[in-house]
Amino acid sequence: MTIDPVKLDKLAQVAIKVGLQLAEGQDLVMTAPMSAAPLVRRITEHAYQAGAGLVTTIYSDEEATLARYKHANSASFDKAAGWLYSGMAEAFRNNAARLAISGDNPMMLAGQDPDKVTRAMRANSAAYKPALQLITGFDINWNIVSYPTTAWAKLVFPNDSEEDAVTKLADAIFKASRVDQEDPIAAWAEHNANLKKRWTWLNDKSFASLHYTGPGTDLTVGLADGHRWKGGASEAKNGITCNPNIPTEEVFTTPHKLRVDGYVAGTKPLSHNGALIEEMQARFEGGKLVEFKAAKNGDLFNTVLDTDEGGRRLGEVALVPHSSPISASGILFFNTLYDENASCHIAQGQCYSDCFVGGKGLSQEQISAQGGNTSNIHIDWMIGSDKINIDGVHADGTTEPVMRGGEWAN
Amino acid sequence: MTIDPVKLDKLAQVAIKVGLQLAEGQDLVMTAPMSAAPLVRRITEHAYQAGAGLVTTIYSDEEATLARYKHANSASFDKAAGWLYSGMAEAFRNNAARLAISGDNPMMLAGQDPDKVTRAMRANSAAYKPALQLITGFDINWNIVSYPTTAWAKLVFPNDSEEDAVTKLADAIFKASRVDQEDPIAAWAEHNANLKKRWTWLNDKSFASLHYTGPGTDLTVGLADGHRWKGGASEAKNGITCNPNIPTEEVFTTPHKLRVDGYVAGTKPLSHNGALIEEMQARFEGGKLVEFKAAKNGDLFNTVLDTDEGGRRLGEVALVPHSSPISASGILFFNTLYDENASCHIAQGQCYSDCFVGGKGLSQEQISAQGGNTSNIHIDWMIGSDKINIDGVHADGTTEPVMRGGEWAN
Repeated sequence: MTIDPVKLDKLAQVAIKVGLQLAEGQDLVMTAPMSAAPLVRRITEHAYQAGAGLVTTIYSDEEATLARYKHANSASFDKAAGWLYSGMAEAFRNNAARLAISGDNPMMLAGQDPDKVTRAMRANSAAYKPALQLITGFDINWNIVSYPTTAWAKLVFPNDSEEDAVTKLADAIFKASRVDQEDPIAAWAEHNANLKKRWTWLNDKSFASLHYTGPGTDLTVGLADGHRWKGGASEAKNGITCNPNIPTEEVFTTPHKLRVDGYVAGTKPLSHNGALIEEMQARFEGGKLVEFKAAKNGDLFNTVLDTDEGGRRLGEVALVPHSSPISASGILFFNTLYDENASCHIAQGQCYSDCFVGGKGLSQEQISAQGGNTSNIHIDWMIGSDKINIDGVHADGTTEPVMRGGEWAN
Repeated sequence: MTIDPVKLDKLAQVAIKVGLQLAEGQDLVMTAPMSAAPLVRRITEHAYQAGAGLVTTIYSDEEATLARYKHANSASFDKAAGWLYSGMAEAFRNNAARLAISGDNPMMLAGQDPDKVTRAMRANSAAYKPALQLITGFDINWNIVSYPTTAWAKLVFPNDSEEDAVTKLADAIFKASRVDQEDPIAAWAEHNANLKKRWTWLNDKSFASLHYTGPGTDLTVGLADGHRWKGGASEAKNGITCNPNIPTEEVFTTPHKLRVDGYVAGTKPLSHNGALIEEMQARFEGGKLVEFKAAKNGDLFNTVLDTDEGGRRLGEVALVPHSSPISASGILFFNTLYDENASCHIAQGQCYSDCFVGGKGLSQEQISAQGGNTSNIHIDWMIGSDKINIDGVHADGTTEPVMRGGEWAN
């Protein structure tokens, strides 16, 4: 065995008991790559043991996706399974929980026609939007967790045998997900308490903006009016407290879509749809990313930013200390769920409506009026390092340190 | 390799080119057990090569199903994925084609609580009904094809090694599906022409009823008013001629739900949801199956018949010569798609609205008025053998032979 079955089972338990806190009788809609079936099966067991109503898994298959790129007519790439996504939205409106297993080969689409990749992604994002809004709006409890597929493992550990690579990635996932600990559920309770301490402090301060300085970076990120910092456990509108990301190390909130100015340098490569975007550099004016360059794949990312009106504006700002366990592992995971938790980051696109005071009751119009951004994309990119200082700026212009050298200043 | 990859690829081609006749730009919704992934992938390739819009596969997983039976609360078994089925119905209304790969372990649910099995099946049938009506009503082109999964193969060939059993079942599937022939597509054209000759004769005769005699059987099956015999290729309402079943040997039509009388003996065991129902005996009065016995699992089948009002009435009557290739193989497949094509059969439950003259334009009410039955079940059972004689009975009471000793009389 390359994947420790006891820890895999603990990961499934954490997904159900911590990630979702699945309620008695609640249905579960799961999505997963076929190669993640061993984790899907353990999660299905734990879901039913926790009293799940019905567990339904929608599998994706890399080979089928590649067959499309190899054989399909051009017109195919403007299509998406809208019927499936509207079905999912219906399930969420009926209070089904949602669990996504990530583990796809991050380089699956490398080498495919970028125009087809972009069009397929746009069609998919548009079709998925109604379901995604119920997730990002926390109408229901949801969770993302990872499985160490072979293709992903070989990308992260290219010099190891398949078996060794999977073992190493599995161990990294288990450690970051705290299932290497004696009592993972207790460990998550403690971790959530630490994150809460951080976001409570930030909410008490109610900064108007954050000011980032460091190599290649002098950026002011205005925060949305009535923004609220969150992190770790989060109460959904259905009354269930879930941990959307396993692992998670960030505290995050919504920036103001019109109040981001200055320049900023990416500090880690961004893996996006099979392409690695490296040495990113961006300049913002009035909230809009007006200039973007990268040493590699800059054109591709510019195309992605132009997906829609909101693609060049920010939907999330997140703080992660440089010493966080995922950062300390030194591994580039090529997977946002992991890489974003290794570093302070910002996200282009859709904001989380729940990151507002009273967010659960706000309309889309109110959220927009307070500075919340709307887009079919939500793409995190990493701007933190041990050389970044961050100041909180009050409405009256006074400042106080938030991070120094990539660590919490207090 | 236990499964010949060239023949598997030909099977995929037959599914797309003969089974569906998939149109340029048409979407495809496929369902399959996970263990049938090798065939799903070949079909996906052929679909895109034929110009498919988007191919979406919904996989089922035996292990997940069994986890439900092992761990779920009782209340779970009254649930179904209605959101998924209503999504499928939406896809069909938007002209997506539908392909089902059969290959599940027929004994998967053997040993599970029959009450849970029945409740789960009923909940699923009710939720699936809107999508199923679009399929059985031929709103769109559809097809069922089989893949030789290991679990199924070991049931059919219990005394062989897994590898030998799969090889044998694969060869039987390939032969019955005519992909062992040099040009399977031409072979299907010839076979369809032969079936057409049979149903054209039956339609010209326009019998009022069929009269079956044989060991344990003296049954009159009234045919629906304005019934139409069909078989093999079938034109769907979207204008595409499809071959719904690969393989198929039957010609079939709709009996009158109120005009079935007499007694009939099953001639092959019926595999239903993990149970084998053996030596079936039924008595009909006024269209209703009023008395049912079996040497094994009769109680279970009686429960299934009571699913709803239409469960004890007939929805299909089908003629298959005893010398048909599947019958000649002598194999009991434990799979209706195969076993029904080895023998004359009748089906309890839902009728095919397309088996009426002008059926594409008839309302549910009209179909019912002409004798078409409605139910959430459609279960074929086998009543043919080399000892069965069938007479066609005209409205004036005169008769002429249709089958003698299980073969066409002319």
